[in-house]
Amino acid sequence: QINGDRLWDSLEEMAKIGPGIAGGNNRQTLTDSDAEGRRLFQRWCEEAGLSMGVDTMGTMFARREGADPSLPPVYVGSHLDTQPTGGKYDGVLGVLGALELVRSLNDLGIRTKHPIVVTNWTNEEGARFAPAMLASGVFAGVHDMGWAYDRRDAEGKRFGEELERIGWKGEEPVGGRPMRAFFELHIEQGPILEDEGIDIGVVTHGQGLKWLQVTLTGRESHTGSTPMPKRRNAGLGMARVTELVHEVAMAYQPDAVGAIGHVEVYPNSRNIIAGRTVFTIDIRSPDKCVLDAMDGRIRAGIAQICEALDIAHEIEQVGHFDPVAFDEGCVKAVRDAAERLGYSHRDIVSGAGHDACWINRVAPTAMVFCPCVDGLSHNEAEAITKDWAKGGADVLLHAVVETAGI
Amino acid sequence: QINGDRLWDSLEEMAKIGPGIAGGNNRQTLTDSDAEGRRLFQRWCEEAGLSMGVDTMGTMFARREGADPSLPPVYVGSHLDTQPTGGKYDGVLGVLGALELVRSLNDLGIRTKHPIVVTNWTNEEGARFAPAMLASGVFAGVHDMGWAYDRRDAEGKRFGEELERIGWKGEEPVGGRPMRAFFELHIEQGPILEDEGIDIGVVTHGQGLKWLQVTLTGRESHTGSTPMPKRRNAGLGMARVTELVHEVAMAYQPDAVGAIGHVEVYPNSRNIIAGRTVFTIDIRSPDKCVLDAMDGRIRAGIAQICEALDIAHEIEQVGHFDPVAFDEGCVKAVRDAAERLGYSHRDIVSGAGHDACWINRVAPTAMVFCPCVDGLSHNEAEAITKDWAKGGADVLLHAVVETAGI
Ligand SMILES: NC(=O)NCCC(=O)O
Ligand SMILES: NC(=O)NCCC(=O)O
Repeated sequence: QINGDRLWDSLEEMAKIGPGIAGGNNRQTLTDSDAEGRRLFQRWCEEAGLSMGVDTMGTMFARREGADPSLPPVYVGSHLDTQPTGGKYDGVLGVLGALELVRSLNDLGIRTKHPIVVTNWTNEEGARFAPAMLASGVFAGVHDMGWAYDRRDAEGKRFGEELERIGWKGEEPVGGRPMRAFFELHIEQGPILEDEGIDIGVVTHGQGLKWLQVTLTGRESHTGSTPMPKRRNAGLGMARVTELVHEVAMAYQPDAVGAIGHVEVYPNSRNIIAGRTVFTIDIRSPDKCVLDAMDGRIRAGIAQICEALDIAHEIEQVGHFDPVAFDEGCVKAVRDAAERLGYSHRDIVSGAGHDACWINRVAPTAMVFCPCVDGLSHNEAEAITKDWAKGGADVLLHAVVETAGI
Repeated sequence: QINGDRLWDSLEEMAKIGPGIAGGNNRQTLTDSDAEGRRLFQRWCEEAGLSMGVDTMGTMFARREGADPSLPPVYVGSHLDTQPTGGKYDGVLGVLGALELVRSLNDLGIRTKHPIVVTNWTNEEGARFAPAMLASGVFAGVHDMGWAYDRRDAEGKRFGEELERIGWKGEEPVGGRPMRAFFELHIEQGPILEDEGIDIGVVTHGQGLKWLQVTLTGRESHTGSTPMPKRRNAGLGMARVTELVHEVAMAYQPDAVGAIGHVEVYPNSRNIIAGRTVFTIDIRSPDKCVLDAMDGRIRAGIAQICEALDIAHEIEQVGHFDPVAFDEGCVKAVRDAAERLGYSHRDIVSGAGHDACWINRVAPTAMVFCPCVDGLSHNEAEAITKDWAKGGADVLLHAVVETAGI
């Protein structure tokens, strides 16, 4: 079993870097805080005797040698970056849980046959640079690295330049590392486990996702003196699309979610009809047919809305992944570990995207979920108990050791 | 008649200060550009032999002495501040038209009985500091000056401090100046005059307005992993209120307008359900009963929307004026001037708020409208012709001289 107190202390220590304004974290990718968090993690890895490799996407790979160094390693990790108003556990638990697993093996003097590589993927959140899971996507061959470097944040800064600026652009080419398997521990970010009083989610599938960035172009004009029939109101258009996305998601319950979380309004003045709005639709489903149907209905609906309001529209897909079925063998390793350790467990579908969803394309992959209070995540108030964290890391340890062999 | 070329040149000269990004202006109130525009206007006033007074709200009063200095002056002017993406004529035409009127009287060697005071009111637009028409409102006793000083812009800067910073806080107490009358020339900012091919709008009434700042509080959570029934989506609430405002305005056609132009979404991330939104509703009607009815329906609708979505709401009224009926004598002076000069004209209701709407409470007041291309305003593409500008200023000259006496 892992050391729950040590894991908890490390979580608390990391949370001091890039503090939020309400008890959580703002340690967005490629910020100075991200660099500082990486340095702390690097130091801990060195102290645990791991050797660090960094690739040209900034992803960190901390290797614990195996009894047979020629065997492909078992990878285990998640991400240290956070949302702008993020929690202390989303991603971080997966990285520090993996580190704790290695520390525990050190304590016990256990050497696995396969090497183990603790991993911190760059830009999982996608808050600063869309899309989410960017580095794992490049690693899995889904995205081109040049394209990834060209992603821009809201201030127009390029991913590639920011990576260099914070000093975490490594030398190693991205991808092509042999992998026996990848395991990721994560908080559920939804309410199911807590509601049902269950310790461990055995993640069998991940929802598919589309991010559609929509630009509506109407005409800026005076709110007081422009007669209602003469308006070309891009703000009203955005409101109708927001409702449309909600209705389409509701039409496919319980197999769909959807919302608009990011909006920009121009010129954003109290007495000016918005001339332009830019916003991103986030739709998800565990069923690819549903996801595609939602996409189609939303595009058709936007065209109708815009025609009625005499405004123009453009739609750009800025994020996408198909629903994922994780590797049966790895999933079984997780389920068996929970069973063996006596934790209550259930199979579960991940509502969020994870680096594991991309890595599943290039290596056998599975995930472990632990509960989080009220299902709340992407919120500074995100919370878990020490026991939940320990349970998740225990299961992770056993699934990894089972796969890496002794 | 006034000198149309000189007026046009002055408009072009002023437009060089605080240029926009698309041919218009960004000379928002109490910015460095505003200060620079004021200095240019001051220089022009000095060259025209006027003596300048500045009150503690920063409003500029440039006086041309009358044959009888003891008579109350006729005031004439508008505002030099613009929207963030504003046009070159909204407000500016009224100030520089008034200056041109004085220049023309100088050329002709005409001295009026009553003094004439060319006026530039501070913060008419309300874009940076709500509410609009702030200084004229304090002048008319509608707002308290301490309250006005406490208004904050989006960055939290106070009106009073910014006024001091740009060096335009005068010594003179606000209000209490005796006024024979106030005249304001303005572009229509709507499509009626151009559509009907008419030179001059004789403004008999102004619409009433309410600005309601609404704060919706839901709960930030993950877009992918929060089940639809568990969401408390403040972004969806804002969308529904946007549609509500539109529907309520449509229900009172042609006597109402309404829209939401300014919104803030927190935390504004692609994969986070908005936990909080803040936005301002702008509703207007020439009929006070309609305005009050709209206000009531919107408040009731917001309560319903929020109950359905399990989100909290607060509503703060951040701007308000009742519909205005301008002074019959002054309106007649404008109508007679247009008639005498042979300009086509019609009576019209102002859709926008103007400093004249407040000043009408403390002195006989009227307005002159000239057309603008496509009714477009609060847009950098705002345009007028030199002839329209000259027509408006000619009528202004004659109405003012008629009232000031020779
Ligand atoms: N786990 C997580 O929050 N990932 C961010 C990408 C997503 O929106 O699902
Ligand atoms: N004329 C004008 O645009 N005034 C600003 C206040 C308003 O929104 O009506």
